[in-house]
Order: sequence, then C-alpha cells, then structure tokens
Amino acid sequence: MDMLEWIKSRRSTRKFKDMPVEKELLEQVIEAGRFAPSGGNNQTTHFLVIQDKEVLDDLAGLVKQEFAAMEETPGLYQSLVNSIRLSKTGNYIFHYNAPVLIVVANQKDYGNNIADCSCALENMMLMANAHDLGSCWINQLKWLNENPVLLKYMRELGLHGEERVYGALALGYPDTKDGLPQRNPLARVGNEVTYI
Amino acid sequence: MDMLEWIKSRRSTRKFKDMPVEKELLEQVIEAGRFAPSGGNNQTTHFLVIQDKEVLDDLAGLVKQEFAAMEETPGLYQSLVNSIRLSKTGNYIFHYNAPVLIVVANQKDYGNNIADCSCALENMMLMANAHDLGSCWINQLKWLNENPVLLKYMRELGLHGEERVYGALALGYPDTKDGLPQRNPLARVGNEVTYI
Repeated sequence: MDMLEWIKSRRSTRKFKDMPVEKELLEQVIEAGRFAPSGGNNQTTHFLVIQDKEVLDDLAGLVKQEFAAMEETPGLYQSLVNSIRLSKTGNYIFHYNAPVLIVVANQKDYGNNIADCSCALENMMLMANAHDLGSCWINQLKWLNENPVLLKYMRELGLHGEERVYGALALGYPDTKDGLPQRNPLARVGNEVTYI
Repeated sequence: MDMLEWIKSRRSTRKFKDMPVEKELLEQVIEAGRFAPSGGNNQTTHFLVIQDKEVLDDLAGLVKQEFAAMEETPGLYQSLVNSIRLSKTGNYIFHYNAPVLIVVANQKDYGNNIADCSCALENMMLMANAHDLGSCWINQLKWLNENPVLLKYMRELGLHGEERVYGALALGYPDTKDGLPQRNPLARVGNEVTYI
C-alpha cells in the first residue's frame, strides 16, 4: 500500500488478542512516535509503555473508580459522559484489555503539549497499521490528568512532576477472524474543505 | 521507503520554489488530512486551502502587523517571542512564501479540537513527504486565533463563527539543489521512554 492507502485504512481496534506484541514491532511503533515533529524541536513527549498486566488492571480499576464518582454535567463531552455511565455500571475497562498501553505525556506549561503528543499518537497509529497491529486512541487518562488518584499512580510509574498525560494508545494484535485490523475506509468524511 | 522511513525522514521545509503545487498532489495531501482520526469520529476539522497570492500576502502583512504590536512578556513561548521580535524589524513572513497554506480549524468548544487538527497536520506532512513535497507546521495563526483582526480576516475567507484556527501547513516544492525535501533524520531524539 502507498502512504495514502495506509492513512485511509487506519481504523480503531477495540478488541485485542491476549498475547504480547513482538518486541521489535513495539519498538518500531515507539520509534515512530519519537520521530514525530515537536514545537521548536522541543522533544519533550514522554512515552510510558505499560505491558505489566497488574499495572494495566490497576489502571483500569482506578479509572473506573474515579469516573464512577463523577457526575454528568450539562455540556460535558459525549465520550466522557459514556465513560462515566459505563463506570457507574461497574463494567468498564478503558483500555479494551489491550496488552500494551502507551501513555504519552508532556510538560503541563508547554504550549504545544497536546499538539506534540497528538502527532506522536498519529505516527504510532500509522506504524501499527503498517505492521498489521491494531490500535486505538485513548483519552480517558487525559480527562483524568489532574485527578489526584490517577496523578499519584502515574507518578509512581515514572511520570515527572511537571508532566501531564495528553493521550494514550491501546496496542495489540486485533481479535479478528483473519488476525488483521479492520481496514474498511470511513463511510463518510465530513470535514469541510474551503479553497481560496 | 517503508512507513518508518517516511516518518523518520519527514523534516520541516522553510524555503519553497515559486511554483504552484500540482492539483492532484495537493488533493492527496488534503485527503490524508481529512482521513485523520477524530474524537468520537467527530470530523469537524475545517481545511482552508489558500493559494491566492494576494490573500497569502494580506495574511503575512496582518500577522506581521499584529505581532509587531505585541510585547514580550516573561514566560512567553520562545517561538512566539521570535515572531514578535522579527515582526518588529518589519521583515517577517510567517508562511515562508509557500505557494500553499492549509489552515486547519475546528470548533472552539470541542475538547478534541487541537488533537484532531494535529493528527490532520501530521498526516498531511507525511503525505507531502511521500510526494517529495516540502512542508512546515505553522503555529502563528493559532497564536493569533482570538486576535480580532485575524479572526475577522479568516471569517471573510470562510472560517465559521464557532471555529478557531489550531494550526496550519506551509506546502510547496522545496527550493533545494535536487528539488527534494531535506531528509536527514533528526540528529538527536530526546523524548524519554519508560517501560513498565
């Protein structure tokens, strides 16, 4: 496939096989993220690559616990509302049981923090697709990035004091019949283009 | 080249030939941006593709004028400081005289606006690289996205009322000896990786 086809065929995977990602492939995905552009070549995106099953379970439990304690307020982002509702049912695993969760963090007072982390995530999603790995952008740890419970836990894992989480990537082998990621291109592309 | 090589060889181009980008290539770059992921598949990134020389000149003049009127304050982002200083010299063209400027905007009250625009920009930079086009992420219109003068002008171009600019891409044929983008991989990659 050429670049445009890789880009167009990248879709979110939300069901993963219970097997670890081959080390070499994982390293290439991370390298793709590390080579993303950054504002003024700042290069302060911090990748926390979590494969420890116990840590992944802890995180899922803490996220569910903190969302379950939150209330829906008017105007709240719909995906966040869904996370709160599901967490209150007690049945919510934000990382879809992926064998790898790559958390991306950056300095909280750096103006390009979200942009840099987003470019790194996009690179990693494209790299995953090129290796037939499935991936999904995960926002839950970003929504909770000032939550004291999650902040404390992330710091125990290696997050630095001035850093906050701006996104994450669930990564693994897709649990599909043929083992490949679902690659149907988007049925609808709604973004507007204005030529001037 | 494979995906990792395309990603690693993407570098910023800041000097462009004075010639328009071939229509088919430009459309592929925009398509790459439009197929970027978005929060909840929201697809509200708005691409304003500016090729009109007069509009590009107007924009350069307005940006210079507004930065020149700003003062440096302590703690200001260094690239913004540089823009202010250069604008005060009267010699500043924020889009590097690229023949195409693709402005990316999104809804101001949408929580994933910067992230979605950033993924679109990263896709477009990779697509440009795959077509031997040069590109550079441009932040100046984002820094001025609440500036009344720029907001008024962008609205005349087609920006909607609830939208704000979150980035832009300078795009064109690189003004290099061989006509190809500079592709030396980064000398240093400083991003930290923590395995857990």
